[in-house]
Amino acid sequence: MAELTIHGTYFSSKDPNHVQAVQDALIMIDSKGIIARILHRKDPEYAKQLQVARQQERLVELGADQYLLPGFVDLHVHAPQWPQAGLALDLPLAKWLNHYTFPLEAKLSDPTYAQKVYQDFVHNLLANGTTAALMFGTIHFSANMILAKESVKQGLRGFVGQVVMDNPSTSPEYYRNSSAQAALSSTEKFIHAVRDLQTQSGQTIEPVITPRFVPSCTDEALFGLGRLAHQYDLPVQSHLSESNWEHGYAIERFGQRDTEVMDHFGLLTKRAVMAHGTQLTKDDWRILRERHSAIAHCPISNIYFGNGVLPVKQLLALHNQLGLGSDISGGYTPSLFHNARQAVKSSQQLTDGVDNQLPAEKRGVAGSRITMANAFYLATRGGAAALGLKTGVIQAGYAADLQVVKMHRALMPLSTADIFQRLMYQTEQTDIETVFVNGQPVYQRN
Amino acid sequence: MAELTIHGTYFSSKDPNHVQAVQDALIMIDSKGIIARILHRKDPEYAKQLQVARQQERLVELGADQYLLPGFVDLHVHAPQWPQAGLALDLPLAKWLNHYTFPLEAKLSDPTYAQKVYQDFVHNLLANGTTAALMFGTIHFSANMILAKESVKQGLRGFVGQVVMDNPSTSPEYYRNSSAQAALSSTEKFIHAVRDLQTQSGQTIEPVITPRFVPSCTDEALFGLGRLAHQYDLPVQSHLSESNWEHGYAIERFGQRDTEVMDHFGLLTKRAVMAHGTQLTKDDWRILRERHSAIAHCPISNIYFGNGVLPVKQLLALHNQLGLGSDISGGYTPSLFHNARQAVKSSQQLTDGVDNQLPAEKRGVAGSRITMANAFYLATRGGAAALGLKTGVIQAGYAADLQVVKMHRALMPLSTADIFQRLMYQTEQTDIETVFVNGQPVYQRN
Ligand SMILES: [Zn+2]
Ligand SMILES: [Zn+2]
Repeated sequence: MAELTIHGTYFSSKDPNHVQAVQDALIMIDSKGIIARILHRKDPEYAKQLQVARQQERLVELGADQYLLPGFVDLHVHAPQWPQAGLALDLPLAKWLNHYTFPLEAKLSDPTYAQKVYQDFVHNLLANGTTAALMFGTIHFSANMILAKESVKQGLRGFVGQVVMDNPSTSPEYYRNSSAQAALSSTEKFIHAVRDLQTQSGQTIEPVITPRFVPSCTDEALFGLGRLAHQYDLPVQSHLSESNWEHGYAIERFGQRDTEVMDHFGLLTKRAVMAHGTQLTKDDWRILRERHSAIAHCPISNIYFGNGVLPVKQLLALHNQLGLGSDISGGYTPSLFHNARQAVKSSQQLTDGVDNQLPAEKRGVAGSRITMANAFYLATRGGAAALGLKTGVIQAGYAADLQVVKMHRALMPLSTADIFQRLMYQTEQTDIETVFVNGQPVYQRN
Repeated sequence: MAELTIHGTYFSSKDPNHVQAVQDALIMIDSKGIIARILHRKDPEYAKQLQVARQQERLVELGADQYLLPGFVDLHVHAPQWPQAGLALDLPLAKWLNHYTFPLEAKLSDPTYAQKVYQDFVHNLLANGTTAALMFGTIHFSANMILAKESVKQGLRGFVGQVVMDNPSTSPEYYRNSSAQAALSSTEKFIHAVRDLQTQSGQTIEPVITPRFVPSCTDEALFGLGRLAHQYDLPVQSHLSESNWEHGYAIERFGQRDTEVMDHFGLLTKRAVMAHGTQLTKDDWRILRERHSAIAHCPISNIYFGNGVLPVKQLLALHNQLGLGSDISGGYTPSLFHNARQAVKSSQQLTDGVDNQLPAEKRGVAGSRITMANAFYLATRGGAAALGLKTGVIQAGYAADLQVVKMHRALMPLSTADIFQRLMYQTEQTDIETVFVNGQPVYQRN
């Protein structure tokens, strides 16, 4: 018997190119938080099940302007940078890092501050419809545990990384690991602590192997992290060829591309998620495919720091694994609705080019345009697949991670395709009314 | 004596490159809705005036998380397209026009529908902090009058254009003027009717000469509209070299660029505002400067339909006149906050380029990056200047068109520069709490 039944119209990603719209469905969620059955209006049991759920007061009835979507998966986000979201984006990278980002991350060593920041951060992810997140923490064990515990407490599916950055030539003295060995042993301690938390809570909470990026790590740290990833079969996250500078750095230091370096140290696993990748070559794409490693596309952040647009359309056609990330605070918003919009827009800009002084046919890369259905796939199914989560889809057998969204007033008749577009283009945080993780309400507006 | 005094911190554009931040000011607004004086904390009269305003119950006291900004000027927006904002943006232009836009605009011939749409539209502009707007209506006299009256009723400073599109080869039979002569005489009727409304109401409401764009008009219509613009000294609005297609069309039909054609028909006046201009040449920029005609930059819409990025930085340096437009529904949002964000982002993309297969130095146009201060200038001072309005600035002698905005929770100490960035990057519609036009509240959240 269902514990909770939701009655309404939903949208769910069918495949990278198609969205399924089902009107007036009954989504029946079992006591384990899994979608057990979905009944359509024509189903012989529909009327009876609707009545039973109503009588037993376990029916969530969506209003005429409300729609159900899967919760979003944020595949790349820096939790400690939440306080500076939307700040300093007019600054060049070096100033952004040294005047804002590193000093802020260093402040998370204070557990009182970490508690305040992470409580608010996790709440804001949920309030934006994000039900699972692959997160960078800081180098601080205690603060990272606070982030993990807040995720559990508030019901977010949390993948938390303790950042490793031990290279003195790229990391400031006040904010870096004292040695590779210290970083690795603290990471191992973190792995055990989070696994204990997972066992106790029974929720999705996982430690993540997290070299900040190649430039910030010594060879010893990269080697040790690769070993830990395999020893404990853990997800890995990092940044990969994010910018011209980062792409060039690996070539300078190793005589190899960033992707080859990561691969050399065993960090490109089938559980690895590499952020950005705007400067990857086609050979890098192939290596990532062969390793079944995913790319976290962060379209807003990439504008500020990526020096180019990730060719999502081409990568999807090649079956590279992709999801969507907010990259707080390289991006200014935790909303994957806004990031989905930017993903579509940036792909249009890649298609058309930007410089009108060039002839139209030399300005862009024809055929790069993605649709909103593609972006929605990244934000839901794609991200869930990258994390190995059976969620991100509204379908029997999948976990009930869901968001109820209110559509802005319709002043003309809208097809379901129109409604999908409107929801994706106009939903703001305050239009998200209820969010469920594993069938449990984790956010309720007002 | 002031009718209304606002006590709080405000941000106002000083010039295209600088924002002025004043903490704890007293903005004293007179009975005509003009800012009469601004007192700073150090002013000897400050304490007394604060006390008097409080005693006389004409003090608006901003909360600790509230800030005052000028109202925004939307310099290009299609009122009848409001019902389809956020729809159909995955379609190519021809389908977007023929399956969505033209059929929708045609429906505004029904006054009941026009009333419903325009009432909601004007309300939404105000709710988004927009206090003045240069608007396209439709070809229908009655519907345009409804838009003008709704603007007056709700307190928006409205500039309303009756659209002319009489070219049978580019406009569908069900939605075009029956002849150039019919279009011109209806326009003249509209001019008189709006001027009467202006006289009766005493508010800012102006008729605007509005050839849809060169392709949609016959020579006779363009000639006649140029004549009317001069005869009645009216603002002019149109689209100019918006896309590769539009730019090429003028050259094909006239053997001249779009700008030269507009100029030939006398439509580039000092009161003209031309939307988009993404494909303008540097010669076109010069012609626009010489005529003191402004460009309405619509960064979100340009991504979908512009085939390139307007080089705002270069145009500001040359002292071309610029403002910001939402271009509903080429853009999906009426929010100029969102458009300001996109203006900054698109300029960064113009700088960096988009195609990572090109070498970094050949990818973009170095030096094209604008700051959020530039974008804020466009949305306020720039737009007001283009419309000849003495508003858009918080300064004595300027009309009190203002918005009170709530900042998202601060988890770290923020400088006033940080607060400005946060407001511009994170304000959503529901963070706008009160909007004033001419010192009168025209929107109040809840
Ligand atoms: Zn990142
Ligand atoms: Zn337009």
